[in-house]
Amino acid sequence: MEALKQRIRLEGKNLGDGILKVDSFLNHQVDAPLMLAVGGALAARFGALGINKVLTAEISGIAPALTTALALGLPVVYARKTRPVTMPEHAYVTTAPSHTKGQLVHLMVSPEFLGPADKVLIIDDFLARGKTIDALVRLAQQAGAQIKGIGVVIEKAFEGGRQELAYLDVPIHSLVAITAMSGNRIDFA
Amino acid sequence: MEALKQRIRLEGKNLGDGILKVDSFLNHQVDAPLMLAVGGALAARFGALGINKVLTAEISGIAPALTTALALGLPVVYARKTRPVTMPEHAYVTTAPSHTKGQLVHLMVSPEFLGPADKVLIIDDFLARGKTIDALVRLAQQAGAQIKGIGVVIEKAFEGGRQELAYLDVPIHSLVAITAMSGNRIDFA
Repeated sequence: MEALKQRIRLEGKNLGDGILKVDSFLNHQVDAPLMLAVGGALAARFGALGINKVLTAEISGIAPALTTALALGLPVVYARKTRPVTMPEHAYVTTAPSHTKGQLVHLMVSPEFLGPADKVLIIDDFLARGKTIDALVRLAQQAGAQIKGIGVVIEKAFEGGRQELAYLDVPIHSLVAITAMSGNRIDFA
Repeated sequence: MEALKQRIRLEGKNLGDGILKVDSFLNHQVDAPLMLAVGGALAARFGALGINKVLTAEISGIAPALTTALALGLPVVYARKTRPVTMPEHAYVTTAPSHTKGQLVHLMVSPEFLGPADKVLIIDDFLARGKTIDALVRLAQQAGAQIKGIGVVIEKAFEGGRQELAYLDVPIHSLVAITAMSGNRIDFA
């Protein structure tokens, strides 16, 4: 996706330790028209797989997952990190290490919205080491849902997440893959 | 907005203490096509005001703010509750009491994405006592931005948020206003 690659080239900042700052268009300020294009491009990769629900994790997965769900005409469920009072006590819960927060976070989904009838597409902003997506996989598996595919906006290919998730044997697509970051230089696949 | 009112009638649950459970379509599972209609309806109310940015608070403001921004062709900024490593240390910060979490939360915005040139539309999922929106107002004021309007998906009119925000003298629109909740009964304006 050339428009996205251009934005990363223009506005992305390598903060070191594998962290790419893209909060001018992806995860603090969100470029809504770009995000619509992102959702359309992700939807196009998975449209034929019989998916009935998009699954993501709050917070920064919500925008690309919502526009992907819009393009597919489907609902999106976002796993919560803290339990709202509206969530039943018997929710599905797992944990994931947060790369940018340096601690374990909980992820939980209400059984009201994820179950054995669901065929889910997992969407997230980044695929790095694959830890958040692996947590979403575990939540879907707890619910008995079928995982049909994994789509991400930006893959940091040098962190090995794709290999970590290969055991699932489902299609994994990223719109942009970064092969290396060094100083001001960002290399794309 | 009749479609939204119908969904609240069908799926909304009064959990007591003023809490309305609408997590089947608004803030855990999100009905993406409905949210697109919500964004279009909110945008239509404010389209002529010279707005250049939509401002909301993570987490459940993101979906309606994103679809409103989509309809307006504008970026959206969501105030963060925890500081990501990508945010500069001199961010704008304020606090707001969380009705559903029973504690104070921080809200912060990077000065990179909100400043004196901005004319913002504040969007949130709920207008209850107005505390979250008032916190967003303070962030916009810290940044020197101009507030052009406030739009919410559901107003709990009996909690007085509209009166709390009247001092701002800007248009406040809700798509659905609830005047009372008692047992299984939800009354609309």
